[in-house]
Amino acid sequence: MNEQHIVTGFDRDLEAIQAQVMKMGGLVEAAILDASKSLKNQDEELAEQVRSADKQIDELELLINDECATVLALRAPTAVDLRVVLSVMKIAGNLERIGDYAKNMAKRTTVLVHMTPVDGARGALRRMAREVQLMLNDVLDAYIQRDAELAQNVLERDKEIDQMYNALFREFLTFMMEDPRHISPCMHLHFIAKNTERMGDHVTSIAEQVIYLVTGEFPDEARPKATKYEVD
Amino acid sequence: MNEQHIVTGFDRDLEAIQAQVMKMGGLVEAAILDASKSLKNQDEELAEQVRSADKQIDELELLINDECATVLALRAPTAVDLRVVLSVMKIAGNLERIGDYAKNMAKRTTVLVHMTPVDGARGALRRMAREVQLMLNDVLDAYIQRDAELAQNVLERDKEIDQMYNALFREFLTFMMEDPRHISPCMHLHFIAKNTERMGDHVTSIAEQVIYLVTGEFPDEARPKATKYEVD
Repeated sequence: MNEQHIVTGFDRDLEAIQAQVMKMGGLVEAAILDASKSLKNQDEELAEQVRSADKQIDELELLINDECATVLALRAPTAVDLRVVLSVMKIAGNLERIGDYAKNMAKRTTVLVHMTPVDGARGALRRMAREVQLMLNDVLDAYIQRDAELAQNVLERDKEIDQMYNALFREFLTFMMEDPRHISPCMHLHFIAKNTERMGDHVTSIAEQVIYLVTGEFPDEARPKATKYEVD
Repeated sequence: MNEQHIVTGFDRDLEAIQAQVMKMGGLVEAAILDASKSLKNQDEELAEQVRSADKQIDELELLINDECATVLALRAPTAVDLRVVLSVMKIAGNLERIGDYAKNMAKRTTVLVHMTPVDGARGALRRMAREVQLMLNDVLDAYIQRDAELAQNVLERDKEIDQMYNALFREFLTFMMEDPRHISPCMHLHFIAKNTERMGDHVTSIAEQVIYLVTGEFPDEARPKATKYEVD
C-alpha cells in the first residue's frame, strides 16, 4: 500500500459504505448460526427471531445501494474506484440472498417442529451451516484486506459444502424409502440442505468479486456458479 | 416524452446496451420454452442444446456489465440516467439467473429420462414454465416502453405461479407416498417446480426495477422477494 496515499472524499465515502457491508455481513453470519441452532434444538422462539431480524438485513442492502448510487453520482469514480463501488453493490446483493436462505431455514424449522422427527440429519445440517458461516467470515476478511489468496481458499472450500449436500441428499432418499412418514419432513430438510449449499454459492460469488477487485480478473474457474446448479 | 429531447452520447450508449439486454431476454425466453419442451417430450437432444446455449447468456451478462461500467466511467451519469444504468445491471443479473434455472431444468430432464415415469406432472410443469416465459416477455416490453402499469400487472401474475407450485408440491407428496419408486423422480420434478417458481421471482424483481425506473420508487409491496421464500 502507498503510505502517502491521499485520503480523498471518495475514500471516506467508501469507508463508510464498507463499514455498512461489514455490519450486514455480521448480521448474516449471526442469522446462519441462529437458524441452524434453532433447527438443531427445535427452538421455535429463536427461529422467530431469525425471521424478524431479516428485515434489518434487507434494509441495509437498500441503504448500501443508495449510498453507492450517491457516490457514483457525486464522485463519478473511474477505473479501480468504480470497480470497488460496483463490487460493493454485488456483495450486498449476495449477502441479502444468504440472509433470505437463513430466514427460510428458520421458517422450515417452525414447520418441522410439528412433524415426525428424522434422526441424524440435523447435526449434519448444522455442521454444514457452520462451515458456510466460517467461509463467509473469511471472505469478508479477504474483502477488507484485499486478500486474493484467502478469497481463493474460500472458493476451494465450497467443494466440501457440495459434498456435504450430496451425502445428505442420499441420506434423505433412504429415509423416505424406509418410511412414508419421513417424506414430508425430508422434503423440508432437503430444501434446507439445498439452500445451505446455495448460501455457499453466494459466498463463492463474493470470493470471485474479491479476486476480481484485487487482480482485475475473474478467477480461472470463472463463474463456477454457471456450472454449479448440477443435478444433485 | 419530450419531443425535443437531444440525443446525447449517453443515449446512444444506453440504446446499444439495452439492445443487448433484449437479446439476452430473447435467449432466456427460448431457454425456458425449450427446457420445458424437452422435459415434456423427454427430448434429451433438446435438453443438451439448452445446456450449451446457456454459455451465450452468461457471456452476454458479462458484456452488459462491462459496457455499463464503461458508460459509468466515461459519461458519469447522474439522477435518472444513473438509475437506468444500475437497473440494467440488475436486470441482466436476473436474466442470467433465470437462464441458469432453465439450464438446470434441462439437466434434470436428462436424468429423469432414465427413471420411472411419473404421469401428469410434466404437463403442469410445462404450463407453469410457459406462464413464466409470458411474464418475462411482458416485463421486457414494460422495460423498453417504461410502462409501470404493465410491470405492475406482471408483479400480480406471480401469485398464480406460486399457486401452481403449491398444487404441484402436494401432488408430488401424494405420488411419493403411493409408490417409493416415485420418490427419486419426484425429488427432481419438485426441484424443477421450485426453480420455475424462482424464475417467477426473478421476473418479479425485473418488474420492480421497471417500476422503480419509471416512478422513482419501489412498488407498494416492496421487495416481495423478501417474503417470498415461504415454506411451501
